[in-house]
Amino acid sequence: MPPKNSLVKNLLPSLDMPKRRRFLTGSASVAATLSVTSLTLPVNAEENPLWMKTPGKPMSGYGTPSTFEASVKRPFASGYPTVSPGTGSSRTPHQALEGTITPSGLHFERHHNGVPDIDPLQHELLIHGLVERPLLFKLDALSRYPLVNRVHFIECSGNSGPNSAPEPPQITAGAIHGLASTSEWTGVPLALLLHEAGIKPGATWILAEGADAASMSRSIPLNKALDDAMIALYQNGERLRPEQGYPMRLLLPGWEGNTNVKWLRRLKLTQAPTFTKDETSKYTDLQKDGLARQFTFGLGVKSVITFPSYGHKLERQGLYEITGIAWTGAGRITRVEISTNNGLSWKDATLQGPVHSKSFTRFRLPWHWHGTTHVLQSRATDDSGAVQPTRTVFTAPYAKGMNFHNNYIQAWAIDANGSLSNVYT
Amino acid sequence: MPPKNSLVKNLLPSLDMPKRRRFLTGSASVAATLSVTSLTLPVNAEENPLWMKTPGKPMSGYGTPSTFEASVKRPFASGYPTVSPGTGSSRTPHQALEGTITPSGLHFERHHNGVPDIDPLQHELLIHGLVERPLLFKLDALSRYPLVNRVHFIECSGNSGPNSAPEPPQITAGAIHGLASTSEWTGVPLALLLHEAGIKPGATWILAEGADAASMSRSIPLNKALDDAMIALYQNGERLRPEQGYPMRLLLPGWEGNTNVKWLRRLKLTQAPTFTKDETSKYTDLQKDGLARQFTFGLGVKSVITFPSYGHKLERQGLYEITGIAWTGAGRITRVEISTNNGLSWKDATLQGPVHSKSFTRFRLPWHWHGTTHVLQSRATDDSGAVQPTRTVFTAPYAKGMNFHNNYIQAWAIDANGSLSNVYT
Repeated sequence: MPPKNSLVKNLLPSLDMPKRRRFLTGSASVAATLSVTSLTLPVNAEENPLWMKTPGKPMSGYGTPSTFEASVKRPFASGYPTVSPGTGSSRTPHQALEGTITPSGLHFERHHNGVPDIDPLQHELLIHGLVERPLLFKLDALSRYPLVNRVHFIECSGNSGPNSAPEPPQITAGAIHGLASTSEWTGVPLALLLHEAGIKPGATWILAEGADAASMSRSIPLNKALDDAMIALYQNGERLRPEQGYPMRLLLPGWEGNTNVKWLRRLKLTQAPTFTKDETSKYTDLQKDGLARQFTFGLGVKSVITFPSYGHKLERQGLYEITGIAWTGAGRITRVEISTNNGLSWKDATLQGPVHSKSFTRFRLPWHWHGTTHVLQSRATDDSGAVQPTRTVFTAPYAKGMNFHNNYIQAWAIDANGSLSNVYT
Repeated sequence: MPPKNSLVKNLLPSLDMPKRRRFLTGSASVAATLSVTSLTLPVNAEENPLWMKTPGKPMSGYGTPSTFEASVKRPFASGYPTVSPGTGSSRTPHQALEGTITPSGLHFERHHNGVPDIDPLQHELLIHGLVERPLLFKLDALSRYPLVNRVHFIECSGNSGPNSAPEPPQITAGAIHGLASTSEWTGVPLALLLHEAGIKPGATWILAEGADAASMSRSIPLNKALDDAMIALYQNGERLRPEQGYPMRLLLPGWEGNTNVKWLRRLKLTQAPTFTKDETSKYTDLQKDGLARQFTFGLGVKSVITFPSYGHKLERQGLYEITGIAWTGAGRITRVEISTNNGLSWKDATLQGPVHSKSFTRFRLPWHWHGTTHVLQSRATDDSGAVQPTRTVFTAPYAKGMNFHNNYIQAWAIDANGSLSNVYT
């Protein structure tokens, strides 16, 4: 058993004492703000709410959210519906979520030709090319291997692209940064399968191909495949969702989204990159000098304040908790600082433990709002020492409008009415 | 970045080398068993599967599992449908799941009068009784408090009750042990709210009441409420599911399920237990001497092998991974041992990290099946030193058929055909 009051003790370091005293013992205004909305005590039967007066709904085989939460969904947009039906993306509504796990139904989507409806008994994974012995796996064979489960984010290289527009878009945190989601993934370490196939001398890259109509394909350095890559079979406890690659996907923790090839059907060991359409026609970073950086695999250190953010409104003055998520392709988040004065000064947020490698980390900082204007920013640091860049620093080397691998500091302005907007600083 | 081959290195301690050599370099029989089902390489376009030939399905606002997974659902049974509609339970199908997080749609249910359909704007939580100042909270007020997110299991006190029958029931691991599930919960530490209300001298218990038609109510010692209790508002990132208490539930990590009162509407501080119908007419443990133990709050150390288990069939000889989940109300799981010979000898399984307190811990042990009969058992130990008891030890003090708080060692027999059955040992 943990010591008594462990939760309260854990919170204490993040609440400075003067604020905490007011918060707990309560001036009239704090009490009115935070909790007491009425002192009429609805404890007699006459005042029981409607739903206590009749039996509720029956049990169900597979549950769904409350109908009152119908607005919490993935906004989505298609790119070129007539050229490539099913291409586009949908985004995790971070402004409505909490914690670190993304519900599987709200994990972001990025498809290039729709979601294939794969029969798991028919699907096969081929390992071939520069191997001693080509291997062909059915799902039931793969499922018998020793498995690992790990909590990791996946982030599309196009995430936060809306913030590359000339003017800051007035859209939610999810609509900007929602091409990133975190799940507990369970699968087979890829290194086991490659060792079983036998890696031939000269093999240094792997072509990974999906079984969708776009044959989405990426070239992966062999070193990453032998490091922490897995063939993911389960997401948050159950078989992968169709939009996440059912029945199997490549998982390359910390690397840009489309290298985590969904509906994985083929891994071919090669001597060099294959230069597929999906790594030449897009997902490259055009620089000011006209050259494009290719194979920007590892994702940068990043954070976003999810509350308060665009679409929220602070209805009254008083205590709020500023909170958000931070992540990095390099490993663990070690620090998140928050500024409420447009970067003039910074204060450390509490990192909600445990902090997993290459996973969303929830940060929190209690804050008193006194009805004045502010600009809120969060700045993350990771265990490689990397610090989230400002907009100016991030955009400096790139051509105007370059909208991949954007990890610059997000700023939200609060006006005197408590309304939030997206601002560039 | 972790060292290269970190996943493989992590696996090595769990694989003894002779087995690993056979596994990796492959005798013909192992190869045939594990991976190679065909050497015809389907890499030319003619052999592309059907789903690569037409665009896939469009994106969606809220995703659902593949239709091929329709059988993975919660089995449920009602108790007294005419007396109390909506009473009964549904169970997490552990035999089909992996990792540690339970998908919210498959979290077990136990209702006493159905699932209320609560309007979150109307719902109120009252804190009253022996307090300096009664408090009444709407959801939006509670949501502004500093929050914490933690991964915890909830287990019904009636879980594993089917194994109290005179003969071992031939049903799945989920049908026996599925009244236990794990989620990432986010909510307000209850201690914060109690300190704000002001605890009057003499208060030592709390009555917690739900807003369902059964007014499900339990008495809770104040010490637990001041320890790690929270008012949970989010489950796996999104607002609680209706079956889990939307819009708020009491969460008492490690304590029997029905003390985690769903649809929480009232906390009354009292001098003594209230002795509600839900803690007197049931959820007590009848002993052989005719006396019933009451208030068995903390759940015992427990584990269950989920693969292989009843309903699975080992189709051929070769390498399998024995895996399952372990948990304890006392804190962390420190050890899980596996016996394949009906308890004659035991071998340590690998605990898949990170190991959270009061949460499912996934354990794994690679194992070669040679087509002979076995009895598989798992035995968990926790950081309080408690060891999961045998059936004989567990049942000794109780009246025949006592079916609460059952945590004895589950045994699965494998016959020479690879079929699994539930056995008492």
